[in-house]
Amino acid sequence: MLILGHELSDCNSVYYPEMEITKPTLLLSKEIALRNIQNMARKANDHGLNFRPHFKTHQSAEIGEWFRDAGVKCITVSSLTMANYFADIGWDDITIAFSVNIPEIPEMNELAGRINLNLLIENKEGLAALQEKITWHTGVFIKIDTGYNRTGIESSRTQLIDELLETIQKSPLLQFKGFLSHTGHTYHANSTHDIFSRHFDALLKMKALKMRYRSEWPELMISMGDTPSCSICDNFDGVDEIRPGNFVFYDLTQFKLGVCQLTDIAVRMVCPVIAVHPSRNEVVIYGGAIHFAKDSIINIDGKPLFGRIVVEENDKKILLDERNYLHALSQEHGILKITPRDLSYFKPGNLIEIIPVHSCLTANLMKEYLTTEGEIIKMLPFY
Amino acid sequence: MLILGHELSDCNSVYYPEMEITKPTLLLSKEIALRNIQNMARKANDHGLNFRPHFKTHQSAEIGEWFRDAGVKCITVSSLTMANYFADIGWDDITIAFSVNIPEIPEMNELAGRINLNLLIENKEGLAALQEKITWHTGVFIKIDTGYNRTGIESSRTQLIDELLETIQKSPLLQFKGFLSHTGHTYHANSTHDIFSRHFDALLKMKALKMRYRSEWPELMISMGDTPSCSICDNFDGVDEIRPGNFVFYDLTQFKLGVCQLTDIAVRMVCPVIAVHPSRNEVVIYGGAIHFAKDSIINIDGKPLFGRIVVEENDKKILLDERNYLHALSQEHGILKITPRDLSYFKPGNLIEIIPVHSCLTANLMKEYLTTEGEIIKMLPFY
Repeated sequence: MLILGHELSDCNSVYYPEMEITKPTLLLSKEIALRNIQNMARKANDHGLNFRPHFKTHQSAEIGEWFRDAGVKCITVSSLTMANYFADIGWDDITIAFSVNIPEIPEMNELAGRINLNLLIENKEGLAALQEKITWHTGVFIKIDTGYNRTGIESSRTQLIDELLETIQKSPLLQFKGFLSHTGHTYHANSTHDIFSRHFDALLKMKALKMRYRSEWPELMISMGDTPSCSICDNFDGVDEIRPGNFVFYDLTQFKLGVCQLTDIAVRMVCPVIAVHPSRNEVVIYGGAIHFAKDSIINIDGKPLFGRIVVEENDKKILLDERNYLHALSQEHGILKITPRDLSYFKPGNLIEIIPVHSCLTANLMKEYLTTEGEIIKMLPFY
Repeated sequence: MLILGHELSDCNSVYYPEMEITKPTLLLSKEIALRNIQNMARKANDHGLNFRPHFKTHQSAEIGEWFRDAGVKCITVSSLTMANYFADIGWDDITIAFSVNIPEIPEMNELAGRINLNLLIENKEGLAALQEKITWHTGVFIKIDTGYNRTGIESSRTQLIDELLETIQKSPLLQFKGFLSHTGHTYHANSTHDIFSRHFDALLKMKALKMRYRSEWPELMISMGDTPSCSICDNFDGVDEIRPGNFVFYDLTQFKLGVCQLTDIAVRMVCPVIAVHPSRNEVVIYGGAIHFAKDSIINIDGKPLFGRIVVEENDKKILLDERNYLHALSQEHGILKITPRDLSYFKPGNLIEIIPVHSCLTANLMKEYLTTEGEIIKMLPFY
């Protein structure tokens, strides 16, 4: 565990003033990201799980290569746009983990013709449209809702599942791959124990489906995946595949959940200081909603926190305690709450770093990374 | 006033299925945007005000031309990146309405050499850096905080203002243009009366500065601008220039403030329906945080609302009442709360429209518009 107010060593290798950073810049520690990738790949391997990481977090061809170097051969994305981007650079086994979007089926045919494509269905309308319009062999997962209540079929609705399977069986181009879920309610857990119990409950539901349907579909897979449970749970009974995504960078949301250490977070936003307002203990930075996005967590003072602050002192990075934080965002401005004691770290024109609350949305806005090795990494260009 | 549940006529001209919309698409009514531009241009003209609209809302070369057609010759932007983009397409009089970001001053010189550039200062450090590094004639506004408390100098701090002016006077390249403020606390008003009173208070503060300094600086301007007060107030006593931005599109935030009608909102997101969950009165759409951004307003049920819903019935657009709304967003998914009565409007694969809460952030994410005339309009490509 990192001691607050003390040195935060992992990103010390970047001495950014030499890199001429002049505006909000998303800094990526390649070392930390590689470690996160290797740890998750090893965990999947140790548990005999197929590792199909979600690429919506980084959305980058180059970071995809880091996964390939760790042995990854198949990936998850959240849209056809993203699937096309990664297919164009050589990924040939992709699951679009988003229940089939009917208007896009004609465009999916082109992709299904050149890679192994898996789609999700969760209702008769989606399946009927697929059956009618798909022109290539396509894998199909049935999307199960294990309790997140965002979307999917509750695992108890076996009559609907039976009907869907009957239709799939009659469709020569559709191959049933198994049941897929995203146990996203681990993000709303109040403790790591709560993550374990939500994950375990999801496991039971998915395993019950496997037991029920495997005599008829002996090849069926159970695909699960959310960063909280994949990071801290060790029970994957009945699971064949995991699809976590956020773990490549982690963020303050995961730290607050107890899923990672602060030193596991691979991204930080470098922001110039614009103004210091001692009368209200605030500092204005260049870095706003169009850089960070607006997800927040609740700080110790009960107020929304949009980021934690890292400053530099004698060439060392210092993490300020939670009484200092990014507390408001407008389009380009960020407002930091700073204790009187720590105000002296801030001078107009200086650069500071912010650890983001939700790395997926922050990366999606920034569209490129500056690595600790001084390299610029581009993301999916328009999305 | 629009009657809920009845026809919303202004966007009827778009019959999008023929345009083959397959994924979240930001629809722009050119007719409404042009009307909004003309109304504000006329208002500025009627009050003898210089109209310097803020282009951060639309960030588009083409929409900029619509302003030019309405007689606009000078603009406001919120970053050097945006200033460069608009300078490259012929805008030669630009104010960067963001207190000077010291690390970017060297890059500003290139721009200052080819257009009339105005910068904002609010502290000695920013001014000293400008004085030291600027190599071309540049206009300078002093940024005043009229009560928003985001950033700027309180109007009562005349000693600091005196010191800044003394320095500016000695700087051969810096030309003092006047005092600039953004009365952004009109966005936190509880009523239109409250907008009037906040605007009036800001007027008094700015006029007091004008009175105090105009003998020494007879050319000084007072520049103000926020969409709420520019839209509904008629007292601009002492003001020389207005810089509103959001009004070109408006949005639900402005509607809730009483600043515009729903029929003045020029943008809507078209989203495909993915799944219908009658058991919890929810509908899942393709359209999430990476399309809308995450600003919300409080709905009549006390919960956050991320958008209002427009459906189609017999070729007419129908606005559903507030019991139906976009109530949650994850990266790609949007969750609608829908009353049992209105669930029948939603079928997987259909397209619906969402009126956004904050059009600036939504446009910033989408990077292009589809106009009601079937044209694709691009925005500033990477930002």
